[in-house]
Amino acid sequence: STQRIALVPGDGIGPEVTAQAVKACDAAARRFGLDLAWEEYELGADYWRITGQVVPKDVEQELAKADAILFGAVGDPSVPPGVLERGLVIHLRTAFDQYVNLRPVKLLPGVPTPIEGLRPEQCDLVILRENTEGAYVGAGGFIHRGGPDEIATQESVNTRKGVERLIRHGFRLATGRRKHVTLVHKANILTYAGDLWQRTFEEVAAEHPDITVDYVHVDAMCLYLVTQPERFDVVVTDNLFGDIITDLGAAVQGGLGLAASGNLNPTCSAPSMFEPVHGSAPDIAGRGWANPAGSILSAALMLEHLGHPEAARGLEDGVKAVLPRLGAMRGPEMGMSTEDFGDAVAAAISES
Amino acid sequence: STQRIALVPGDGIGPEVTAQAVKACDAAARRFGLDLAWEEYELGADYWRITGQVVPKDVEQELAKADAILFGAVGDPSVPPGVLERGLVIHLRTAFDQYVNLRPVKLLPGVPTPIEGLRPEQCDLVILRENTEGAYVGAGGFIHRGGPDEIATQESVNTRKGVERLIRHGFRLATGRRKHVTLVHKANILTYAGDLWQRTFEEVAAEHPDITVDYVHVDAMCLYLVTQPERFDVVVTDNLFGDIITDLGAAVQGGLGLAASGNLNPTCSAPSMFEPVHGSAPDIAGRGWANPAGSILSAALMLEHLGHPEAARGLEDGVKAVLPRLGAMRGPEMGMSTEDFGDAVAAAISES
Ligand SMILES: CC(C)[C@H](C(=O)O)[C@@H](O)C(=O)O
Ligand SMILES: CC(C)[C@H](C(=O)O)[C@@H](O)C(=O)O
Repeated sequence: STQRIALVPGDGIGPEVTAQAVKACDAAARRFGLDLAWEEYELGADYWRITGQVVPKDVEQELAKADAILFGAVGDPSVPPGVLERGLVIHLRTAFDQYVNLRPVKLLPGVPTPIEGLRPEQCDLVILRENTEGAYVGAGGFIHRGGPDEIATQESVNTRKGVERLIRHGFRLATGRRKHVTLVHKANILTYAGDLWQRTFEEVAAEHPDITVDYVHVDAMCLYLVTQPERFDVVVTDNLFGDIITDLGAAVQGGLGLAASGNLNPTCSAPSMFEPVHGSAPDIAGRGWANPAGSILSAALMLEHLGHPEAARGLEDGVKAVLPRLGAMRGPEMGMSTEDFGDAVAAAISES
Repeated sequence: STQRIALVPGDGIGPEVTAQAVKACDAAARRFGLDLAWEEYELGADYWRITGQVVPKDVEQELAKADAILFGAVGDPSVPPGVLERGLVIHLRTAFDQYVNLRPVKLLPGVPTPIEGLRPEQCDLVILRENTEGAYVGAGGFIHRGGPDEIATQESVNTRKGVERLIRHGFRLATGRRKHVTLVHKANILTYAGDLWQRTFEEVAAEHPDITVDYVHVDAMCLYLVTQPERFDVVVTDNLFGDIITDLGAAVQGGLGLAASGNLNPTCSAPSMFEPVHGSAPDIAGRGWANPAGSILSAALMLEHLGHPEAARGLEDGVKAVLPRLGAMRGPEMGMSTEDFGDAVAAAISES
């Protein structure tokens, strides 16, 4: 039966990279007998400038009916920073209850990493970032704004329900992997939020005696991600810490251009959304210099989520086959345009 | 005239590394004609276990009279996590209004960095972390603690005064360096705290037309610290982001064992405190496997702060001379014990 995918290419390099992901998915659909129907939504900077709205209610209702959303990137110098990121990305994550932000950190063979001597078998972890609460809720305020006595507060709100469902997802995922879950927080300083996270983690861990666990402070995590990524299998953490350490993870695995993510609603009460970790990179848009690997690998997570593990594997293998041919992971030195990369991946899938 | 330095060796490897820093300072005092008087305070895990107190009021008053504090590290498996860190380190930073946490990230010649191909001239920045407020104030609480509807909040409190004095220190420091200041925050999401930081940054920047400025999100910062550290000269950021990115900075410059820090009270209304970025590392304590470079370089920051730039340079040069002789930056592979390292640095200072 047909699966409807809402495509939101967005701004900057978003349309270029998602076009390659669509191409790869279509090749996989032919090869593995899937029936995918795409519906494109022109959201982003232009839409906002023309309509004054980021996502109107009726478009949101349309998106809600999709089986999944494939998202490019938003953000443009013509729009005040944050408007599209919060109004679109953060809004949809919350509105569609996509409470797990799944971000694999995997060094693929043939990809140059900035970390000296790091081998692919040492770097294969998955970071699960809580995606609907924490410091992202927008709670806080000002007192005496603009004056010498101004105070600005910013509040992280963590619910037992929100923390527990994210952690449970981590233990489920670890069961099918190397059976190790690490909690990352700063519990010695953030004593309230950290206490809830640690207590919940310990309670869920007690139900999973076959899974080993560890706790690492977020500052130490930054060190370990660089020096000992092999320590980690599944990592669970809050929204802000997850935002920070996944960018570092992207650096370790060879760059933002390669990093994939899935905003998952595991209950399927609303669609999940798949997007590369990179932004809209307006500076290189339209030149064919963007690496579409992050978008194609995000589409692979989407196919997996939609119940097509072989097709997902097909996309991954296609990307793995083409990446070693690149001269650089981004820019004119890539030696292959964004589109040629997509064509090569699609060809690899068709021939597989 | 005599300058009184309070020595707080602390737990684990703290006493081993500070002993080398004292040795280096004493060598520099002889060589450069300083008059340093040390007073040792036995705070830390043992003290807490015996007395039930972390820092009694009278000891704090003693410390307050010192010209500077040289701090080792605290923390021991026998003490609940956080008790000593918060009760001693965080408490003194706040009580003595040490509002600037200065952490150089400098790749020294001959030190192996995990970052492939990184050269010393590409990595020489100073991170100034706000050290008295933000998420470290301990504000927050629980609702329905322990139940399924529990909510835990954690609040970051930022004052105009606190933000401005830290930023001003950054611009002062940049004036004597490469004249570039970068603000690191997550202003697109933490809209209240980020707005205060950005507004204050722009106002202070407007007073310094000779200094170039930049803004970088904390997640992107983690990427850039690894891939383009040459982008940065002076970095200003809040307490929690500073905690996170300075550990990453330590990794980039070759490991936590090498990273120095100064908790500065630039008004000198109370003593400043100098400590290596590393912790007490109880697992390797007492074996001579700790690298005292972080402690000695922290002592160099102290001598600088006390008005002895040549002596400070002496310590730095001593460390630079000895580091390339090590087989590894830590552990038995170091090829030189903690004490031998200190002796070698002291000898280098005496012979300079
Ligand atoms: C664009 C921005 C709001 C977003 C975030 O902070 O979550 C991005 O950094 C990410 O990691 O997806
Ligand atoms: C020990 C801990 C409380 C401390 C902090 O979080 O500031 C440490 O990580 C540091 O960076 O000095």
